[in-house]
Amino acid sequence: METLKLAAVGLGYWGPNLARNLDELDGAALTWICDRDEVRLDEYGGRFPDARKTTRYADLLEDDALDAIAIATPAVTHFELAREALLAGKHVFVEKPLALSSVFGEQLVALAEERGLVLMPGHLLLYHPGVAKLKDLVDSEELGRILYVYGNRQNFGKVRKAENALWSLGAHDLSVILHLVGEEPSEALARGESFLNPGVEDVVFCYLRFPSGIVAHMHLSWLDPHKMRRMTVVGDKKMAVFDDMEPERKVTVYDQAPEQPADTWSEWQTRSGDISIPKVANDEPLRLECEHFFELLRGKGDRYAAAHEGLAVVRALEQLQASLERERV
Amino acid sequence: METLKLAAVGLGYWGPNLARNLDELDGAALTWICDRDEVRLDEYGGRFPDARKTTRYADLLEDDALDAIAIATPAVTHFELAREALLAGKHVFVEKPLALSSVFGEQLVALAEERGLVLMPGHLLLYHPGVAKLKDLVDSEELGRILYVYGNRQNFGKVRKAENALWSLGAHDLSVILHLVGEEPSEALARGESFLNPGVEDVVFCYLRFPSGIVAHMHLSWLDPHKMRRMTVVGDKKMAVFDDMEPERKVTVYDQAPEQPADTWSEWQTRSGDISIPKVANDEPLRLECEHFFELLRGKGDRYAAAHEGLAVVRALEQLQASLERERV
Amino acid sequence: METLKLAAVGLGYWGPNLARNLDELDGAALTWICDRDEVRLDEYGGRFPDARKTTRYADLLEDDALDAIAIATPAVTHFELAREALLAGKHVFVEKPLALSSVFGEQLVALAEERGLVLMPGHLLLYHPGVAKLKDLVDSEELGRILYVYGNRQNFGKVRKAENALWSLGAHDLSVILHLVGEEPSEALARGESFLNPGVEDVVFCYLRFPSGIVAHMHLSWLDPHKMRRMTVVGDKKMAVFDDMEPERKVTVYDQAPEQPADTWSEWQTRSGDISIPKVANDEPLRLECEHFFELLRGKGDRYAAAHEGLAVVRALEQLQASLERERV
Amino acid sequence: METLKLAAVGLGYWGPNLARNLDELDGAALTWICDRDEVRLDEYGGRFPDARKTTRYADLLEDDALDAIAIATPAVTHFELAREALLAGKHVFVEKPLALSSVFGEQLVALAEERGLVLMPGHLLLYHPGVAKLKDLVDSEELGRILYVYGNRQNFGKVRKAENALWSLGAHDLSVILHLVGEEPSEALARGESFLNPGVEDVVFCYLRFPSGIVAHMHLSWLDPHKMRRMTVVGDKKMAVFDDMEPERKVTVYDQAPEQPADTWSEWQTRSGDISIPKVANDEPLRLECEHFFELLRGKGDRYAAAHEGLAVVRALEQLQASLERERV
Repeated sequence: METLKLAAVGLGYWGPNLARNLDELDGAALTWICDRDEVRLDEYGGRFPDARKTTRYADLLEDDALDAIAIATPAVTHFELAREALLAGKHVFVEKPLALSSVFGEQLVALAEERGLVLMPGHLLLYHPGVAKLKDLVDSEELGRILYVYGNRQNFGKVRKAENALWSLGAHDLSVILHLVGEEPSEALARGESFLNPGVEDVVFCYLRFPSGIVAHMHLSWLDPHKMRRMTVVGDKKMAVFDDMEPERKVTVYDQAPEQPADTWSEWQTRSGDISIPKVANDEPLRLECEHFFELLRGKGDRYAAAHEGLAVVRALEQLQASLERERV
Repeated sequence: METLKLAAVGLGYWGPNLARNLDELDGAALTWICDRDEVRLDEYGGRFPDARKTTRYADLLEDDALDAIAIATPAVTHFELAREALLAGKHVFVEKPLALSSVFGEQLVALAEERGLVLMPGHLLLYHPGVAKLKDLVDSEELGRILYVYGNRQNFGKVRKAENALWSLGAHDLSVILHLVGEEPSEALARGESFLNPGVEDVVFCYLRFPSGIVAHMHLSWLDPHKMRRMTVVGDKKMAVFDDMEPERKVTVYDQAPEQPADTWSEWQTRSGDISIPKVANDEPLRLECEHFFELLRGKGDRYAAAHEGLAVVRALEQLQASLERERV
Repeated sequence: METLKLAAVGLGYWGPNLARNLDELDGAALTWICDRDEVRLDEYGGRFPDARKTTRYADLLEDDALDAIAIATPAVTHFELAREALLAGKHVFVEKPLALSSVFGEQLVALAEERGLVLMPGHLLLYHPGVAKLKDLVDSEELGRILYVYGNRQNFGKVRKAENALWSLGAHDLSVILHLVGEEPSEALARGESFLNPGVEDVVFCYLRFPSGIVAHMHLSWLDPHKMRRMTVVGDKKMAVFDDMEPERKVTVYDQAPEQPADTWSEWQTRSGDISIPKVANDEPLRLECEHFFELLRGKGDRYAAAHEGLAVVRALEQLQASLERERV
Repeated sequence: METLKLAAVGLGYWGPNLARNLDELDGAALTWICDRDEVRLDEYGGRFPDARKTTRYADLLEDDALDAIAIATPAVTHFELAREALLAGKHVFVEKPLALSSVFGEQLVALAEERGLVLMPGHLLLYHPGVAKLKDLVDSEELGRILYVYGNRQNFGKVRKAENALWSLGAHDLSVILHLVGEEPSEALARGESFLNPGVEDVVFCYLRFPSGIVAHMHLSWLDPHKMRRMTVVGDKKMAVFDDMEPERKVTVYDQAPEQPADTWSEWQTRSGDISIPKVANDEPLRLECEHFFELLRGKGDRYAAAHEGLAVVRALEQLQASLERERV
C-alpha cells in the first residue's frame, strides 16, 4: 500500500508529541512540519530529519502529494486551519476542541462530509485503555442501567489565561461523559469563579441532564490541593471508576448496588459484593489515537463518527459556557 | 454548684449515644428518658438506672425540677417538641436540623431569646477537633483570604426515605461551610436526582455564593463507590483539607498558592511548599458537644450563637431545597 | 440443651471484652467473674449482673456446676491457672500464648487429652474472616504452591515491659503463618534490639524455613512510623494480602506470577492480570472465637486441634526467642 | 575553562541515559560511545552525533585527549574496565557495584588514589533529593540519635539471572543505609530463597548491626504484590520516611518518639505530634549524579569519598552474600 504523507502544524507544548507519533506510524511518513516560529522549527527539525520545514501553512495546502494535516495550534485557530485544509482536499486531525463554537464546528463537519474527508478531533482520553474499559462496562450492561456519571479533574497546576477551566479541563471529561452516555444533554448548567484572571474561571462545576434521565457532573479546578483525574459511573447493578492518577489500578469495578427485596415492602437496601480491578493495557493513548486516525485514512471504520462526537462536545461546552456567563457577577 | 437535671427524648439510632454522653457530664444528671416506644424504653432502661422512663412527653414538661431537654426524635417533630419545651421554661438541645423550615426555626429562636433559654441545635461536626482546627486556620488568616470551600459527603450507605441527601448529608457540610465562611449565602443553587424513592434525591450537587465573593460547593450522595467525608478550603495563601475518613491525618495544610511575581507581567504562577499535618486531638465530638451545651446551661459563652448558626443552616437548606424543587422534572 | 456455665478470669484490658462475648453466647451463661483486684470486680460487676464475683480462683474450681473457665490474665500465669482448671475437670479457654514454654504447653495439652477436656488458646486472628479467606485461598490451591509468607506488624504504640515485640506482636502473625503453612519450622532465626527497656526487644525480625521449602518472615515493632498489620502470601500462581488496617478491603488477590514460557529457553517472565478484592464478612473475630469455643464445648469439631496449634506457636516462639538471645550483645 | 572529554561504555538498558546526561553537561563533551554490539552503536549513534563510535575499548584508552570514561557494562566487567581506564590515566565513573568483591574494589581505590584519579561508583539514590533530605535530617540531629533504619525494595518485576535480589536491589538500599549511618556494619546476616533460578535469590532479608548500636534491615524481593521503594529512619526524637513510590510526598517526618517522663518511674510513654512533608526538589538524580562527577573532575569536593563509600557497599554486600551462602540449603 502506498505510504500516506502527513504534515504536523504547531510545535508548541503538545505538537511535537503528536508529530513524533504520526512519524512512527507504519505506512505513513511525516513530510512537513509547520510552525509560525522559526526557532521552534529549528529546534525540532533534527528530530524529524525527513520532514520539510515551513512557517507558511499554504506550503502544505499546495503540496498535492500531502494526504493529511494534523493541527496542534492554539484553539482559536482550529476552525480556520481545519477549514482551509479541508478545502484543499486534505484529511484533518485537529486537537480538541474541534472549534470554539458549534456553528463553526458544524461547518467543518459539513465540509468534511461533503468532500468525503476524514475530520478527527483529538479527544485523547477516548483512546485511553481505561476509558475503553469503562465504555465496555457500560455497553455490555455489566453496570446495569446507568444512573449518573461524574468527573473530577482537579489539581494545583498551570493557570491558563486563554481558556477557562471548563474549556481547558472540562473538554476532556465531557468527551468521556458523552462517549459513555451516548446522548447530548437536554440541560446544561455551570457555575464557576474567576479568582485570578478576570473572566477566566479557575473553578467550574457543571451539571448535565440527558434525555434518558442520566445525569452527570464535573468538578473542574486548577486551584485545588487534591490531584484528581477521575471518572465515576454509577449503574443500578454495579459502579465503576476510572482513576488516571493511579499508576496501575486504572479501573475499579464495585459489585454493589441498591436493591429492593420483595419482602421489605419496597424499602431499598444496599448490597455490597466483590471489588475487581481488571487488567488494563498500558498502551499509550496518543499512539492509539494516531493509529485510529491512520485507520480512518485507510478507509476503515466510521469516517465521520469522531467528527460528530467532537461536535457534540463543542455543543455541550457552548451550552455550559452560556450558563456560566449568564450567572457571572 | 447544683446538679443540672436533664432529660433525653428519642431513643432511636442516635438518641442513646446522646443520652449516655449527657449522663456522663460532671455536674449533670439524666433524670428522664422518654420515647413513644415502650420496647425501647425497656431496652435502654438498664443503661440509665437513675433516670425515670416515660412515653409521655408532658411528664418532662411538668417536672419543675427538670432544667433541660435534649431532643433526638425524627426531624419532623423537632419544632413542636422544642417549642413546647421552651414554653415550659426548659433549655433545649435539639438534633439537627433545628426545624424543617426557617419560619419555624425563627419562632424557636425568638422564643428562646424572649425567655432567656438556651436553644442549641446539634451540629455535631462543629465540635470535631478537625473542624475546629480548620476554623482556626481560617480565622488566623493562615490560609489568607478564602477563595472557595467545598465538601464531599459520598458513600454507599443507608438509603433514606424521609429525608433527601441534601437534608440528611448536606446539613453536616453546610453547617461547617457557614461556620467557616461566617456569612449566609446570597445565591444557592442545587441540582439532584431521585433514583430510588420518588421525590427523595439520592444525589445532590449544591453551589453557593456568598456576599464576600467566596463560593462553596457540596457533592452529596448515598449511591457512590467512594467513601468520602471531606471539606476542602482554598485560600489565596494556603489550602487546607479536613478528611474524616483518615484515621489519623484528619487535617492537612498545603503551603501552596497562586502568585503573581512582579517580573512576569501579571502571569500567574503556582508556588508549592511544604505540607503539614498538624496533630489534632482525638476527643469525641459528641462529648465536646454535650460539654458545650452544659457550659451554655451554666451561663458561659454566647447563649444564642449556636441557635443562630443552626437557623442559618435551616435557611440555606431551605433555599437549596427550593432550587432543587424548581428544577425537578 | 442444658445451658453451659462459664467463668471469666482476669478483668484487665482484654478480659472484659472476652467476658461480654461469652455472656452473649446463646446457650451459655457467665456465672462467675474473677479478678485479684476488687476494684475491677466492682467496676465490671454492673455489666454482668448475673455473675458472681470473686477474687479467689479456687471458688471457680470448687463450683461443680461450672463447665469452663476462660483465662485472660497475664501470660506468666496462663500455665498454672489452666493446669488447675483442667485438674478440676473444667474446660479451658486461655488467652495467647498458651504458655511461656513448650514444656509447660505440652503438659497442658497432655492433661487436656488425658481428661478429654477442651483446651483452646485464644489466637484471635485465626477467627478473623480475612484470615479465613486467606486460608481458603491457600487450601483451595488458588494461589498455587506457596513460596513464601510474611507479616508486618508495626506501629507506634504501647511500649511493653513484660513481653518483647516477638511475644507481644509476633504471636499474632506466627499463629497465622503456621495456620496457613500447616507445618512447624525447621529453622527459626530472629534478630532484634532493645532500645528502651533492657532485654525487651522493641523491634524484631524473624526468618523461618519450613520442611516443605516455604519460608516466612516477620517484621515486628512498636517503634515505627508506619501502622501496619499485614500478611502477604506469595504463591506460584497468585499472590494474596490480608491487610487489617484497611477498613473494607481486607483481602486482595493478585492474579500475577512468574512464568517460564517454553519459547524463551527458560527465561522467567512475569505475568500480571486482574486484581480482586473479595467481599469478606465483617463479623467480629472475638465473637467467632467465642462461638468456636462454645461449639467445642458442645462436642462439635476437633476438640484438640486448637490446642495443638497453640502449642506449635509456643514452640516456634521459643525457638525464635532462643535465636534472639544467642545474639544479644 | 577547557571542555572535558568523556566517553560512555556500554549501551544496554541504562548506558544511553548516562551517556545523554554526560553529553548535556555544560563544559563537557561526549567524544566516544563504545559497545561490543555494533547494532547498539548504530542505534544510538544518531543521538550522539558528535561522538565517535567504537566496539574496541582500547580506542578510548589510547585517546590521549580523553579525560574520563563512564562505564555502564555488566557488573562482572566493572573491575577490569575500570582498572584499565585508571591505568591509562583516565578518570572513571562506574555503575554500581564498583566491583564484585572487596579485594578488587580495594585495588581500584588504591589505584585511583595512587594516580590521583577520580573513581566514582554510580550509587544513583545518593543523588536523589529525597535521600539528601533524609541525610540532612540525620546529620542535623533533628531525628535525635538514630535507633534503626530499614529499607523495603519490593515489587513484581524483572527476574534477574545474573544477580540475586541482594546485589540487584539491595545495593541501592545499602548505599543509602551506609550513607545515613556513616559506619560499616559489625554484623551482617542475610537469609533468602531462590524460587526461580537456582542459586539466584529472588527474596532476601538482611540484618545489619553497626558498632554504634544502630541496626538496619532490608527486605528485598522481585516476587512481591506490593511495590515498595521505601527507607524508614527511626530516631529517638523523630522518625522519617523516604518513599520513592510517592509521586510528590517523597519525605515524611513524624514528630513522635518514646519518652520517659520523670513522674512515671521509668515507664516509657509515646508522644505523637505533627507530621510534616517538606518540599523536596524534583531534580533528576541522574543529572545530579553526573554533575557531581563533573565537579570531581573539575577538582571540587573530596575526590576519593565516593570511591570509599562504594567500596564500603561492596564490603557489606560481600558479608551479606557470605551469610546467605552459608545457610543455603
